[in-house]
Amino acid sequence: MIEIPKDAILCLDKGFVRLVDSMGGDDAIVQAARVSYGKGTAKVSQDRGLIRYLMRHRHTTPFEMVEFKFHCKMPIFVARQWVRHRTANINEYSLRYSEARDEFYTPDPEHIEFQSALNKQGRMGEVPEELKQKVQDYFKEISERSFAMYAELNEAGVARELARAILPVNLYTEWYWKNDLHNLLHFVGLRSDSHAQYEIRVFSDAMAESIKKVAPFAWEAYQDYVVSGLRFSQIEKGMLEKRLPGRVIDDICEDLAYQITATLHHNKPRKEEDLFPLYQKQGGSDIESDFRLKWDSGEIETGNVREMREFKIKLKRLKK
Amino acid sequence: MIEIPKDAILCLDKGFVRLVDSMGGDDAIVQAARVSYGKGTAKVSQDRGLIRYLMRHRHTTPFEMVEFKFHCKMPIFVARQWVRHRTANINEYSLRYSEARDEFYTPDPEHIEFQSALNKQGRMGEVPEELKQKVQDYFKEISERSFAMYAELNEAGVARELARAILPVNLYTEWYWKNDLHNLLHFVGLRSDSHAQYEIRVFSDAMAESIKKVAPFAWEAYQDYVVSGLRFSQIEKGMLEKRLPGRVIDDICEDLAYQITATLHHNKPRKEEDLFPLYQKQGGSDIESDFRLKWDSGEIETGNVREMREFKIKLKRLKK
Amino acid sequence: MIEIPKDAILCLDKGFVRLVDSMGGDDAIVQAARVSYGKGTAKVSQDRGLIRYLMRHRHTTPFEMVEFKFHCKMPIFVARQWVRHRTANINEYSLRYSEARDEFYTPDPEHIEFQSALNKQGRMGEVPEELKQKVQDYFKEISERSFAMYAELNEAGVARELARAILPVNLYTEWYWKNDLHNLLHFVGLRSDSHAQYEIRVFSDAMAESIKKVAPFAWEAYQDYVVSGLRFSQIEKGMLEKRLPGRVIDDICEDLAYQITATLHHNKPRKEEDLFPLYQKQGGSDIESDFRLKWDSGEIETGNVREMREFKIKLKRLKK
Amino acid sequence: MIEIPKDAILCLDKGFVRLVDSMGGDDAIVQAARVSYGKGTAKVSQDRGLIRYLMRHRHTTPFEMVEFKFHCKMPIFVARQWVRHRTANINEYSLRYSEARDEFYTPDPEHIEFQSALNKQGRMGEVPEELKQKVQDYFKEISERSFAMYAELNEAGVARELARAILPVNLYTEWYWKNDLHNLLHFVGLRSDSHAQYEIRVFSDAMAESIKKVAPFAWEAYQDYVVSGLRFSQIEKGMLEKRLPGRVIDDICEDLAYQITATLHHNKPRKEEDLFPLYQKQGGSDIESDFRLKWDSGEIETGNVREMREFKIKLKRLKK
Repeated sequence: MIEIPKDAILCLDKGFVRLVDSMGGDDAIVQAARVSYGKGTAKVSQDRGLIRYLMRHRHTTPFEMVEFKFHCKMPIFVARQWVRHRTANINEYSLRYSEARDEFYTPDPEHIEFQSALNKQGRMGEVPEELKQKVQDYFKEISERSFAMYAELNEAGVARELARAILPVNLYTEWYWKNDLHNLLHFVGLRSDSHAQYEIRVFSDAMAESIKKVAPFAWEAYQDYVVSGLRFSQIEKGMLEKRLPGRVIDDICEDLAYQITATLHHNKPRKEEDLFPLYQKQGGSDIESDFRLKWDSGEIETGNVREMREFKIKLKRLKK
Repeated sequence: MIEIPKDAILCLDKGFVRLVDSMGGDDAIVQAARVSYGKGTAKVSQDRGLIRYLMRHRHTTPFEMVEFKFHCKMPIFVARQWVRHRTANINEYSLRYSEARDEFYTPDPEHIEFQSALNKQGRMGEVPEELKQKVQDYFKEISERSFAMYAELNEAGVARELARAILPVNLYTEWYWKNDLHNLLHFVGLRSDSHAQYEIRVFSDAMAESIKKVAPFAWEAYQDYVVSGLRFSQIEKGMLEKRLPGRVIDDICEDLAYQITATLHHNKPRKEEDLFPLYQKQGGSDIESDFRLKWDSGEIETGNVREMREFKIKLKRLKK
Repeated sequence: MIEIPKDAILCLDKGFVRLVDSMGGDDAIVQAARVSYGKGTAKVSQDRGLIRYLMRHRHTTPFEMVEFKFHCKMPIFVARQWVRHRTANINEYSLRYSEARDEFYTPDPEHIEFQSALNKQGRMGEVPEELKQKVQDYFKEISERSFAMYAELNEAGVARELARAILPVNLYTEWYWKNDLHNLLHFVGLRSDSHAQYEIRVFSDAMAESIKKVAPFAWEAYQDYVVSGLRFSQIEKGMLEKRLPGRVIDDICEDLAYQITATLHHNKPRKEEDLFPLYQKQGGSDIESDFRLKWDSGEIETGNVREMREFKIKLKRLKK
Repeated sequence: MIEIPKDAILCLDKGFVRLVDSMGGDDAIVQAARVSYGKGTAKVSQDRGLIRYLMRHRHTTPFEMVEFKFHCKMPIFVARQWVRHRTANINEYSLRYSEARDEFYTPDPEHIEFQSALNKQGRMGEVPEELKQKVQDYFKEISERSFAMYAELNEAGVARELARAILPVNLYTEWYWKNDLHNLLHFVGLRSDSHAQYEIRVFSDAMAESIKKVAPFAWEAYQDYVVSGLRFSQIEKGMLEKRLPGRVIDDICEDLAYQITATLHHNKPRKEEDLFPLYQKQGGSDIESDFRLKWDSGEIETGNVREMREFKIKLKRLKK
């Protein structure tokens, strides 16, 4: 059995995720968005605003500028779901080339659940102790029996690439897996979702820990705008019943400051130099260079000033 | 000058889009989703429902099973935006290998507009006749002057790959461009959007015509759920003020039929064979095999039966 | 058990490959290479020459213009190798969503071999009858035992996504798999190679049958220039001992006709209109439009005319 | 005009390439190939041998584990060739969003050449002074005239996205460009080739400098086995006339040590523990763990021991 590296996050009974290396972070996202010489902005808080803006408007290419490389060990049935994310680079342990190790996944009692009656891809409700025991017994029996057969055939000299075909998909495998932040966030978005299978979710959650450390603003923005995004399926919940985190409300108010400025300017054109002060008067909090960047971006919509002001008031109320 | 093919859709003053070939259509999407032997379903209307369901729940891989190949001719500055869609296969006319042709884009008067004051990526308001004339004159002057220089250098024997560097980006180029439906829809979603530059939008709109013919249900579903999707930026508009097309309301009611059935079943488990009749009683209109498929999919949420029924009533009212 | 479709090619004991659809063929390759309106050339023999030329000089993009879609059924351990070809689009049967079927791979006696002593990824020499019997018994035992457990857990209501984890990798799965010709040839080049595992080779060979039908010239050229390509590992075999197929010798002679023409022209420049006749005098057999295309391509090298003529003579001798 | 960063490599008259960041190097390649915990090997010389082995046998995935990010500035016609390498991530300066800068490429006199008579994609022979002057004058005239028009239209308020269409493709643009080592080597292999256009070659050569620093063994192996690889087009040169670098001969001799060992073992099977000493007797210089790795790899061929020994002698002679 291989030794688990010290800085790895343990996953399931014998697996792990370890961040081996990374390139760039929040700063690299901002740098690419500005296609500048890496001067950055005066304050970190400005970087955060720009990253949230990029995420909100689905400008994805700057997030591709950050790269992560993980060393992971997981059961084959988990690897089979994982490998479908095709932008990643992978180097996997080969059972043609190397001997299988006697390492199989057996589920914890608490994760042995009934088939969901509503959802054939899901679980629902813990099963009785007796059935739990049977599941664990079966996992152990098939693991031990298949490995004994494998070992015997191996010993007898049968081709390894053939003998391995009797091993079950709860056998552990391992790999190096490298991906960029945009696609990694997409992976985590799908695989840390409550609809994902528990056994891949723990690996996805472990990788999420690395994202939080390497690119905390990008992570936060992803949570706010994609994971908790207002999706169609939640149409019936209604806007006002939705519990929005305070920072999202701040962002909407920021957007409104731009939209109100744009609408006022549209109704009665102002001089170029009067725009930033006008924006500040609407409660806008960006510095002037970022104001320019967003103002020029082509995504500011105009509307009815009164309606937008009322909406702002409602939002402020939601926050308290 | 090359002859425009008969079945091409003309774009701008000298460009075109022509569907050269395609593989599969709505039927191929359904076939892949069912991973079956192409038996299909009894009625076309069932295919439509399944496609809409796949689109609504972002199950994208079946849409990758349909392929399109276009022959296109467009100005270089348009090709430069277009080529960023990296999943496509491209064979382009080469100016190292072949001589440039005397074909340049000059904008129509109606599309010569002012820089948008709100949006540096946009246009706003037609310009005076005099300025329009100047723009057209400049386009023609630079096209003619650069081509005369190019022709002269070419004649004098200067390397073609070098001489072409003085040609402007309104020069026309052409290519074969092949992509799958999922990525083509993504292209059209971005490039037929009102924020896209007019000169690429006409090409995107032309390709959209082919999608409508080859995969009409997929096209319709894409419009309803992605293009007109309820996005965060429209948060302030509110659900009830939104003008939903009747077919979207029907889809939501369908979803509600599933959710109500699931909730009832959750509250008081039913026998397997009683589920489909229960669903029909809630107004569900799928055939039994599709009911099974969706029921098993893992995306049906439960809620409060009374609230869902009220929501359904509100929706029906919106429709009339 | 699902019925095997009639037009499928059977692979292993229960698997198959079936070409569901394709787009384009040799003509589409030539069309893209010419970026023309599909006029094609006068004779099919000219298309063949151009395709061989493109393959020889590694001009890969025209081959991406042809698309294939297969329906395949294979053991999981085969699918695991297959899925690493990342350019393909895949829709696979899901064991979270659907119940596993009782279909497992058991090797034929003739394919049960010893582990290669030289090659841990290979097999070598048939094993004694007794050991063969044991291997088959073990495959059957583990298949039956694991499926019985799976069925029992399933019956008891355990979540399907969990119960499936005790199934071995010789379980059959199935999918729709779509790829372009360039990447499909690369797949077949690797997986029909003698170093590939027997169990994936039969699927690769089956897909090769479809390529031969859909794009016969491309297939032939791939065999001649890539599969039988003169690779470094064969350095020691020497050029003259190599058994070259007659058509490859013809191609080299064609190349030499171009190179001799180019060298003569380099030594003493000719008029543009004299080049094609000069090329024909050297034994060149292309029509004039294809001569132009290749002449302009930038890959014709010059050399010593005498040496090239001598080499041509040696080649002709090799052919007889 | 933007300031050129200090650590950039200047390219053409106003362009540059700058390595912004990288992840991993030769060690990361070896680490992925071993799928180990980064223990590495005892000696750096062993890493080199393994990397050369991977390159020789086209095991490409470990090279994908190294990542590079560059900041580059180049003319549009160069960017147009560059962007076709689709695996890269790109963030480019936008002429819809930002104003064009007055920066255009004018070729140096020494790079103004005639169209190659042999190769329409190439140049051949310097042109007379007078013609050189004309080329430079034309580049300057079109740059100045088009920029003056652009500036005037811009000043008059014409939409920037439209006005830019009169700018020629010798205008400079800039971007962040990120790619993995495998694909970067492929880029450099094509774009630093003598058939590539001079103007992109200088950028490719500049990036090659970074590869040399970050992954020197991989760079060297790529040169030896891919760039200087024995390709079909050089068939006529003959093996013995080829000037092989000494280190390639050493590698072939290494391969022969394995092949002779394998053949001897095949003719008369040895005990497992006698294989490594036998290999050392044939002149093999790998350490035992690497011997195991390669021995198990499945690529060792057997042959005729006498022939191989003779070939080895011939090779040694070539080296001196």
